[in-house]
Amino acid sequence: MATKNAFYAQSGGVTAVINSSACGVIETARKHSSEIGTVFAGRNGIIGALTEDLIDTTQESDTAIAALRHTPSGAFGSCRYKLKSLEQNRREYERLIEVFKAHDIGYFFYNGGGDSADTCLKVSQLSEKIGVPIQAIHVPKTVDNDLPITDNCPGFGSVAKYIAVSTREASFDVRSMAKTSTKVFVLEVMGRHAGWIAAAGGLASDANTKIPIVILFPEVVFDRDRFLAKVDSLVKEFGYCSVVVSEGVKSPDGKFLADQGLKDAFGHAQLGGVAPVVADIVREGLGLKYHWGVADYLQRAARHIASKTDVEQAYAMGKAAVELALAGKNSVMPTIVRKSSQPYAWEVGAAALADVANVEKMMPKDFISDDGFEITKGCREYLTPLIQGEDYPPYKDGLPDYVTLKNVAVEKKLPEFKL
Amino acid sequence: MATKNAFYAQSGGVTAVINSSACGVIETARKHSSEIGTVFAGRNGIIGALTEDLIDTTQESDTAIAALRHTPSGAFGSCRYKLKSLEQNRREYERLIEVFKAHDIGYFFYNGGGDSADTCLKVSQLSEKIGVPIQAIHVPKTVDNDLPITDNCPGFGSVAKYIAVSTREASFDVRSMAKTSTKVFVLEVMGRHAGWIAAAGGLASDANTKIPIVILFPEVVFDRDRFLAKVDSLVKEFGYCSVVVSEGVKSPDGKFLADQGLKDAFGHAQLGGVAPVVADIVREGLGLKYHWGVADYLQRAARHIASKTDVEQAYAMGKAAVELALAGKNSVMPTIVRKSSQPYAWEVGAAALADVANVEKMMPKDFISDDGFEITKGCREYLTPLIQGEDYPPYKDGLPDYVTLKNVAVEKKLPEFKL
Repeated sequence: MATKNAFYAQSGGVTAVINSSACGVIETARKHSSEIGTVFAGRNGIIGALTEDLIDTTQESDTAIAALRHTPSGAFGSCRYKLKSLEQNRREYERLIEVFKAHDIGYFFYNGGGDSADTCLKVSQLSEKIGVPIQAIHVPKTVDNDLPITDNCPGFGSVAKYIAVSTREASFDVRSMAKTSTKVFVLEVMGRHAGWIAAAGGLASDANTKIPIVILFPEVVFDRDRFLAKVDSLVKEFGYCSVVVSEGVKSPDGKFLADQGLKDAFGHAQLGGVAPVVADIVREGLGLKYHWGVADYLQRAARHIASKTDVEQAYAMGKAAVELALAGKNSVMPTIVRKSSQPYAWEVGAAALADVANVEKMMPKDFISDDGFEITKGCREYLTPLIQGEDYPPYKDGLPDYVTLKNVAVEKKLPEFKL
Repeated sequence: MATKNAFYAQSGGVTAVINSSACGVIETARKHSSEIGTVFAGRNGIIGALTEDLIDTTQESDTAIAALRHTPSGAFGSCRYKLKSLEQNRREYERLIEVFKAHDIGYFFYNGGGDSADTCLKVSQLSEKIGVPIQAIHVPKTVDNDLPITDNCPGFGSVAKYIAVSTREASFDVRSMAKTSTKVFVLEVMGRHAGWIAAAGGLASDANTKIPIVILFPEVVFDRDRFLAKVDSLVKEFGYCSVVVSEGVKSPDGKFLADQGLKDAFGHAQLGGVAPVVADIVREGLGLKYHWGVADYLQRAARHIASKTDVEQAYAMGKAAVELALAGKNSVMPTIVRKSSQPYAWEVGAAALADVANVEKMMPKDFISDDGFEITKGCREYLTPLIQGEDYPPYKDGLPDYVTLKNVAVEKKLPEFKL
């Protein structure tokens, strides 16, 4: 087997553990130096490949690469840049292959969600046609947990843990204050299309620690009266309640609930979050004192409270991607296969990219309670293993000691390419 | 020395470590059972004393009390209920003393901020006059870090750590995405009067991990043009920046910046947070893509990432309060005395409540940089020790195993009292 170089890129919104996958790819490649030469990384994701802005990861020490495992965000930079279809923009795909050829790259590891799986598939198809064979392996990553076939997506478990922990903590706070102050706390979480992350808020309450939580899923059209009745009944029973609201919740008119037509003093439209909107509905409808929070990037960057399961799976996906490549596979994605929920057992599988690309996995309907405000036992059974275990980063001076790589650029060999 | 019972209550906004002080009070009292009989706690703070709604802490096991050390929020309930002055409402003070007398309470431990220090002082003064001697000891607590004499306040260090860690993590996220997506992240933090918590955001950047951060302090009047120029220059240099904004930042007209006169589609006034306002100023002024978050209760409830220093100091304050009482002291508050910043060394001191009540400690002017957007070396030297060390709670099923006490009510002996 001739030595070929590899290319690794991070795609889309970053997570607390995508660098753990990068660590898995690079460490595994380093162990197979007779088959894989240099691992290049794309600076700012696929844009780095298109513009031939490659990073030479051999310039990074083993220690620095190992530290990726405990460092959140995308160490090489990521991007939101969706390649159009082959028909619409063959030029970009050809450029990718041209860059790979120029740098003797035979392995393409693309770490992302649905869009990048699609890009991966197309690069593999086109490279075969052109006669510049490139083994394209997709490494799954998305906090949205919406990739098919794999039981779950690396990145999701850590957001889920962050939201579950934060909801429990904030709920304890509200419970303490409810007698004379705040009775309802509203937490806005990510998830524009699917309620996976919102569902994780439901884990804050369990048999030992009962917390009244109302979840607003994007799968359930917001019904103001039913919502207020639910909050009212919980506050009457428990003295307080927490509301976990997905940013993607929609009004009966099909618009995002967050889009309330707010105008500033000058009449300019303002788009706030959905949390203040829901809080205001509570104030207006029930006259209860509220607080609200918006976790935003904090939730997906929170490596300090990452799920150990998630960190391990993210690493395993990176490692497996390289192993699949070495085994001669192409157009595949390693997957997480659940063998058992209690006790949790999983193993690494593989899926054909043709089955992954352009398929969005939604949350099963039976994960949401009949009244639309809670998670079911089945949902809890699915989610619980994914937040298991803590994997604390090292600390220095009271702060997590995250690594910033040198990211040394590789000399360019090709003419400039305009995006 | 005759055995007397003790009363403990939590006051005002709760913190990640106020229960650690409760733990210090109760564990220390249990060790001195010949002098201190039952420790009663006020259900929902001082309201519990006024309404004779006392909790019998002897019903809680040693294990449950020990678990308070790692449990955020107020385990007995807190309240926002400020007693008026003695002249305006002598009735309430007399009722407190009446309840204390009925339950043979000779020690009053009040765990809170400036207001509760004042209440503590007055109870002590009045009880002496009436001839029902009660030793009133104030246990310092406030995330606002605004109590005088003590070097810092338990509760603050953990919020500071949470904000520093979160700002670092979110900044890593933005740095990854800045090429094609978000360039400015705005995080709103607590602090209506003083910028202590906002200042902690500045710790996210240090010699090893340089992060461009703009801090908006309540001490500095917001100047739109200068702010935009600062953000613009940082984004040009680093490609991105983070903004940490205190909820208390004010416009030149003296109003809160958060109060932007937002109106909904029906013309109703909406009060959002300050983060979306600042984010919108960035969008309008520089056309940069932004994200914003509001940590709200998450920041002060985040026991999962509490500062070990803070947990230890909170416990030490509770313990010292009991020891001061046993030494016959009255109208005092244990304090944290800094002996050295590098290496950090502190010891327990004591302050007369007459010197504590109604004095608010502001952030020193020389803690803010000349341009008003950063912390100085002096500020960093003060803050850094306070976030040192991690003190992780135990976990169960992926979530922190926080205790919920039984909170068994004590039989009432007095007629009802209307608040």
